[in-house]
Amino acid sequence: MITGKNYVGSTLKAAGEKTFKTFNPQLDKENPWVFTEATPEEIEETVTLANRAFGTYRNCSGLEKAVFLNAIADEVLALGDNLLVQYCSESGFPMGRAEGERGRMVGQLRAFAQMLAEGSWVQATIDTALPDRLPAPKEDLRKILVPLGPVVVFGSSNFPFAFSTAGGDTASALAAGCPVIVKSHSMHVGTGEMVASAILKAAQKTNMPEGVFSNLVGGGTTLGASLVKHPLVKAVGFTGSIRAGRALFDLASQRPEPIPVFAEMGSINPVVFLPEALKTNSQKWATAYAGSITLGAGQFCTNPGLLIGIKGAELNQFSLELAEAIEKIAPFCMLHPSMKDSFEEGAATMVAQSGVSKIAEYKGEAAPNYGVQKVLTVDGKTFLENKTLSHEVFGPVSILVQCDDEEELLRIVSQLDGQLTGTIIGEANELKEYKELIEGMQNRVGRLIFNGVPTGVEVCPSMIHGGPYPASSDSRFTAVGIHAVYRWVRPFSYQNWPNELLPVELQDENPLQILRTLNNIQTKSKV
Amino acid sequence: MITGKNYVGSTLKAAGEKTFKTFNPQLDKENPWVFTEATPEEIEETVTLANRAFGTYRNCSGLEKAVFLNAIADEVLALGDNLLVQYCSESGFPMGRAEGERGRMVGQLRAFAQMLAEGSWVQATIDTALPDRLPAPKEDLRKILVPLGPVVVFGSSNFPFAFSTAGGDTASALAAGCPVIVKSHSMHVGTGEMVASAILKAAQKTNMPEGVFSNLVGGGTTLGASLVKHPLVKAVGFTGSIRAGRALFDLASQRPEPIPVFAEMGSINPVVFLPEALKTNSQKWATAYAGSITLGAGQFCTNPGLLIGIKGAELNQFSLELAEAIEKIAPFCMLHPSMKDSFEEGAATMVAQSGVSKIAEYKGEAAPNYGVQKVLTVDGKTFLENKTLSHEVFGPVSILVQCDDEEELLRIVSQLDGQLTGTIIGEANELKEYKELIEGMQNRVGRLIFNGVPTGVEVCPSMIHGGPYPASSDSRFTAVGIHAVYRWVRPFSYQNWPNELLPVELQDENPLQILRTLNNIQTKSKV
Repeated sequence: MITGKNYVGSTLKAAGEKTFKTFNPQLDKENPWVFTEATPEEIEETVTLANRAFGTYRNCSGLEKAVFLNAIADEVLALGDNLLVQYCSESGFPMGRAEGERGRMVGQLRAFAQMLAEGSWVQATIDTALPDRLPAPKEDLRKILVPLGPVVVFGSSNFPFAFSTAGGDTASALAAGCPVIVKSHSMHVGTGEMVASAILKAAQKTNMPEGVFSNLVGGGTTLGASLVKHPLVKAVGFTGSIRAGRALFDLASQRPEPIPVFAEMGSINPVVFLPEALKTNSQKWATAYAGSITLGAGQFCTNPGLLIGIKGAELNQFSLELAEAIEKIAPFCMLHPSMKDSFEEGAATMVAQSGVSKIAEYKGEAAPNYGVQKVLTVDGKTFLENKTLSHEVFGPVSILVQCDDEEELLRIVSQLDGQLTGTIIGEANELKEYKELIEGMQNRVGRLIFNGVPTGVEVCPSMIHGGPYPASSDSRFTAVGIHAVYRWVRPFSYQNWPNELLPVELQDENPLQILRTLNNIQTKSKV
Repeated sequence: MITGKNYVGSTLKAAGEKTFKTFNPQLDKENPWVFTEATPEEIEETVTLANRAFGTYRNCSGLEKAVFLNAIADEVLALGDNLLVQYCSESGFPMGRAEGERGRMVGQLRAFAQMLAEGSWVQATIDTALPDRLPAPKEDLRKILVPLGPVVVFGSSNFPFAFSTAGGDTASALAAGCPVIVKSHSMHVGTGEMVASAILKAAQKTNMPEGVFSNLVGGGTTLGASLVKHPLVKAVGFTGSIRAGRALFDLASQRPEPIPVFAEMGSINPVVFLPEALKTNSQKWATAYAGSITLGAGQFCTNPGLLIGIKGAELNQFSLELAEAIEKIAPFCMLHPSMKDSFEEGAATMVAQSGVSKIAEYKGEAAPNYGVQKVLTVDGKTFLENKTLSHEVFGPVSILVQCDDEEELLRIVSQLDGQLTGTIIGEANELKEYKELIEGMQNRVGRLIFNGVPTGVEVCPSMIHGGPYPASSDSRFTAVGIHAVYRWVRPFSYQNWPNELLPVELQDENPLQILRTLNNIQTKSKV
């Protein structure tokens, strides 16, 4: 079933000589399939195809694209349990997670399809002419969003479904009208191939142009760099480490024609525990956070890596309860031995820093690639002085920072790098007392949570998954939710253009019955 | 009246030793005022002040910011004719233009004030909780746009009012809630100082925080580079040359924390004349384009530098009529001797290219800094082979490219760099025959015009002033119209946040009565 080849458009190709295999972390052994890296010629052919497809695909109606996205969802589901088994064998995740994440992937595809079928997302804006205006007449102007061109999507390691081949980046770019070239993540490239085959079957069934989707295989950084530097590529989506994301951002910025890179990168997702909340609900929060820290072996961009509180009896109590809860949870399998190694190395580096101590660690036996969760602690002064302690360690480790007072807490929050999320655990009346703290946090994050955990990213229009650098390379856009489509479009104006030649969304009659801004009023009315 | 100093917040400072003067191109002599360049200490102090002001200014209500922007408009008008005289003495533009451009600047400020007072621009989006949802409850999520932080605005050379000190970039950034530091354009730094004084008077009268606006003076590139590299600066607005804009973009991209640069750069604004239109209306279009080419000495980003047609009797006739019209128009004064020199040099370089000939030039006497308009011509093949011919020459020169056939025309259009505008002159029935040409043009421009001239940029929501690189550094945003505010904000989510602590725009009661997206429906209703 797995060919190990590249999908150059709908054609399987593998002219290259470099090959690699994926790894099953649960079984602690290599998987059998052999994958062949794309050659420079295959890359060139793929991009050329995508660019040719753009000429047709950009003019597909919203309804046609909706049918395509729904067909992808259908074809993915048609792969049945085979796909879930493949997913587990290349990620170490359990079946439940596989099924849940497939649901999320399919749900995202359908959400974008619904957005397209409804149609108002193009933000049609019409200002009609005023031929008699003085001193000069006003021309008729009409604005709509148009797709940027071929988009390269880098599969993530930690979401083989929801942020990879047919994940949010691909779904949103296809919704926008951009052909997509996926650089499959090398850890689960077999899963990627299966999902790609579903996308291509859907494209064929719904008469999409050849080249609207391709899926390329590469083990190192050459494939990704070639794609990002290619003049016909117009935007990039990425989820992963700061190092890799920044490297792609730099390549894209240095092109003769710079292009946008939407890199969702590292985050330690600070959580502040206010005293009153700990006094009242310390056990509840200890249990909730033990769960959030260990969920999926901590392999979430929203994993709470930094817990902060003010020294005192409440914080001591919370610390003990958190330790107890953490030690009870059985570890989870990590994605790959290399992930487990990085995690252990990162955690060891943190533990080795002066002033840091370990307050909890799972004590039982753990299978080879399982991430043994740990909670560390340090005082506020030491944390402020040592930048190493605020670097993201991908996996189930968090550090509890114990501050002398509110002022130190405030200093820590205001000196944080940009974050995807920030959380405040407090009683409602406490929030008013910590106004400055909340403002400081707001300035550093994309999403501010009250009395909850940062893990669990709802797919809805009000969600922001992104934040000030380095949480993401462009804080002005979200990677989750239907508004992710706005990363792949640009606004375009028609001046004095004949009605019948305008896109239907801008025509006088409003044939799609979409919501438009007509002379500054939001309306579904005709012009 | 002109002090020649920097406004570090509201304080005039000039500790530096480097000074320079501006130039009156109409009188062909230096102006009397001496300007002192900002020192590194003054720059540091300015940015620190702006960052401090951000803490307060970001929390000003829409109404408070509206009052501030309207007060700026009032204070600018209160400067009366003195300001217009200053403008003319530093730009060479006539009084009529000064008055018109002041109207545009004031109109822009008031348009943003109106947007703020109405309030719906923040795109409030609310998804209410579903506590009973399975398998997991849905949290309450609410999204709003928040300002990025201190913004640096580079004044443009060619719009001392509308794209400089209190121009569109400043107005939109202040509307967004970002403090602004202007790097005044050295050609009209006296005009800039007067406008800055009006802004600061308005800030004082409306109780805005110290540092919400500063105005710095510099002759070379040091000031600009220091500002763009400063860690507390969060975004940059620029209007000018590709060379300078790209340099700023590169500096901003190479920062440890990259920041967005909105550079509106070069454009030659291609115009295609279809045969039927020339057969019917050749004289009309010759007159219109002679006017558009020479308007403001061609010193517009939307100046039509590239005219394209298919060889034949109609194009010959048009060419003769254009030449006749061009030769009749008296030249205009250019902004500065250096602009005039660049123009003459650029035009001479084009004329010197093999295959290029001059078909029209004003023959009368011209004062020292006046730009003598020219129209050149070349065949399509030569144009395609010589990239020099598609470089922007800032000033009143255009080249008429004569193509052998439609195919050659198509090749020229598809190989163009990104452009602010593209124009098609044709009869309505002709457009349908040139579908491929129109698609090609759409792909290269930000605004597509039918039967008009590209000069004249309406300030309205449907306007896009921007386009694929290098027309602008980020084609996803416009520099003109109220949507320019979206360059300076990022979306931000509140999860499960107490109603009374949310920004008013997100509170259940919708106290501002703004249009919001509530559970996917656009409405002014309460939650």
